[in-house]
Formats: sequence, C-alpha cells, structure tokens
Amino acid sequence: MKKVKLTNSPLIYPLPAVLIGAVMGDKPNYCTAGNCGIISVDPAAVYTSLDRKHYTGRGILEHKWFSINIPSVDQMVQVDYCGLVSGSKTDKSDVFRTFYGENEKAPLIEECPINLVCELIKSFDIYNMTVYIGEIKETYASESVLTGGLPDTKKIDPLIYNMDNKYLGIGDVVGSGFAAGKNYK
Amino acid sequence: MKKVKLTNSPLIYPLPAVLIGAVMGDKPNYCTAGNCGIISVDPAAVYTSLDRKHYTGRGILEHKWFSINIPSVDQMVQVDYCGLVSGSKTDKSDVFRTFYGENEKAPLIEECPINLVCELIKSFDIYNMTVYIGEIKETYASESVLTGGLPDTKKIDPLIYNMDNKYLGIGDVVGSGFAAGKNYK
Repeated sequence: MKKVKLTNSPLIYPLPAVLIGAVMGDKPNYCTAGNCGIISVDPAAVYTSLDRKHYTGRGILEHKWFSINIPSVDQMVQVDYCGLVSGSKTDKSDVFRTFYGENEKAPLIEECPINLVCELIKSFDIYNMTVYIGEIKETYASESVLTGGLPDTKKIDPLIYNMDNKYLGIGDVVGSGFAAGKNYK
Repeated sequence: MKKVKLTNSPLIYPLPAVLIGAVMGDKPNYCTAGNCGIISVDPAAVYTSLDRKHYTGRGILEHKWFSINIPSVDQMVQVDYCGLVSGSKTDKSDVFRTFYGENEKAPLIEECPINLVCELIKSFDIYNMTVYIGEIKETYASESVLTGGLPDTKKIDPLIYNMDNKYLGIGDVVGSGFAAGKNYK
C-alpha cells in the first residue's frame, strides 16, 4: 500500500462538535470547539483546549468551572455561529436557553441533548493553546433522547465535525465493541 | 425541555476508534483507544490517555515516541481484537503490516489510511490514567484515500466508536463549518 507524506496535521477525525460554556462576568457564554475528548471514564474527566487568547478560557480560569454541551444536527446553525463570533465582541447569552445544574456552577444549554458540568482540575499551556481538564460533577440529558433511561444516539443525532470543515450526521451501526474482535483468527 | 440527571459520565461521543502504536522491546505493538483527540493544530499536537497499568504506555514512556493510526470500517475486526487482547500476553505485531516513517521512531499501520508519528512532549497522571501528549512529527496517508492530494473522508471511511459500545460508519454531510452560522439571525 503506497503511503504519501503530508504536512504535519492532527488528522483525528471526525469528532463531535461541542459547545463549551462558561460564565463571563454575570452572563453565560458558549463557544464552539472540536478539541475535546475523554481523559478518564471513572472518575469521569474530560478536556478541551482553546487558544490562549480565547475569551471563554478567561471565564474557565476565573470560575474554575465549565460545561460541555453536545448539540444535535438540528442546532448546526447556532453551533457554527458560536464558532464564528467571539463573546468578547458579541453577547451570545441569548443564542440558547441556559439552565444550571444542582450546583449552579456552569451554564448549560437546554437545547443540547447532553450536558456535562465540569470542575477544572488542571490547566496548562501547550504552544499557543491552553488545555483545560475537568472532572465531571453532573451529567444531564434531555428526557426526549432517553430510551429505557439511557441516552439513545439516534435520538441525540449528534453533530459531527470533519477534517474537511464539513458537518456530518452519524452513519449506520457496523458492529459491536469488545465483540467484533472475537472473530479474529 | 425536561432534563434528567444521569450518573456522572463523559458522554463525548461518537469518537474515532484509533490504534496507538509503540515499540515494546524490539516489536511493534498496537492497542485500541477511544481517548484520543486534538490539542493544537499548528504546531500539531494530540493526546491519548491509557490506564496507568496499560502495556503500551510503558513503551511510550520508554521510547518517547508513539503513533496514532486511523482505521477504516474495513479493519473493525482487527481494531476490536487489539482492544480485547493485551500485548503483555499476546504478540500483536502480526495483526497489521508495520512500516516506519522517515525518522523510524514509531511503528505505523500500513492498512490504516492515516498515520501520525508523535513525539512525546508531556505526560502526567489523572486518577488511574496516564495522559500522553505528542507533537506530530510526520503525517502519512494511503495514496488510495487521497483526492487531489488531500485525504478524502469518504475514501477513508473512518470507524467510529459510540457510547453504546457500537461501531458506526460516518453519515451524510449536513453543512459547512464557518459558513452554516452565517445564516443565524
């Protein structure tokens, strides 16, 4: 199989498009991020990384809390808008309806089917980015996306961001984890 | 919209299933990971996190190099197998064909359409996980997945891992980044 050397590039795609929430002053602010993922499942810890100059990052460092909100394909226009416009210049507090969890620490997006309340446990700089690692202290789902009490991916219909700068929907199930490999050899 | 509080859980899905490569002794070893993502685009930096006791982690810390390989749906059985079986007990060096990039530092999987050669620039523990951050020093793609010299997602056909422990294919394009949001308001 012939391999071609490309420009150094972090081609880990596709990824869920997410909205990072933080309190800025006394208002909620949301920014769109692709740099986001799982660090640990139990205890549950996640990360996001934002440009050091990023407006939302200031709120995370000030309050030590942030949220990660998983949007549906239905919210694509609002998600993309929150990536186009900086909260430093435009008040984005009314793009979505905000709610707060039991601890009232991080703003959460009502329209997003999944909402994670994260307490900042570590932050550091890498090049021109700041990495924020948060432990998940509360997890919410819209009742409408649950099946038998568990989140149902088809109902969530997550918005996926791809390396070619396109948004995608999810595709069909092709197999099961910790099962498909039993057929090897 | 009624919200339901769930158990704390890092519901950032779906994610690409990836294979982390490292040299163990004098052989390549590959393990399957979902904890993987982008830290910085330029310079290109990425992370993975593995259980502290994880076999592959020892090779990353010893040699300070690792690889991230993006499989296609076609490789689902082998990918899942590499997540079921530990390299500490089973030699997985022949599951895939291995090649090395120009710097010959990290084993890369020929069958995977995208291969990232990463130099470890930072590692730390969070709970029972170790987080490995690598700067990408070489990026390879199979010639067969390029269109006009760039990676083509349809040709890559990436294998996606979902929160319900299912593998998915990618879905249809629903819009364009930094464009769809221009229609807001």
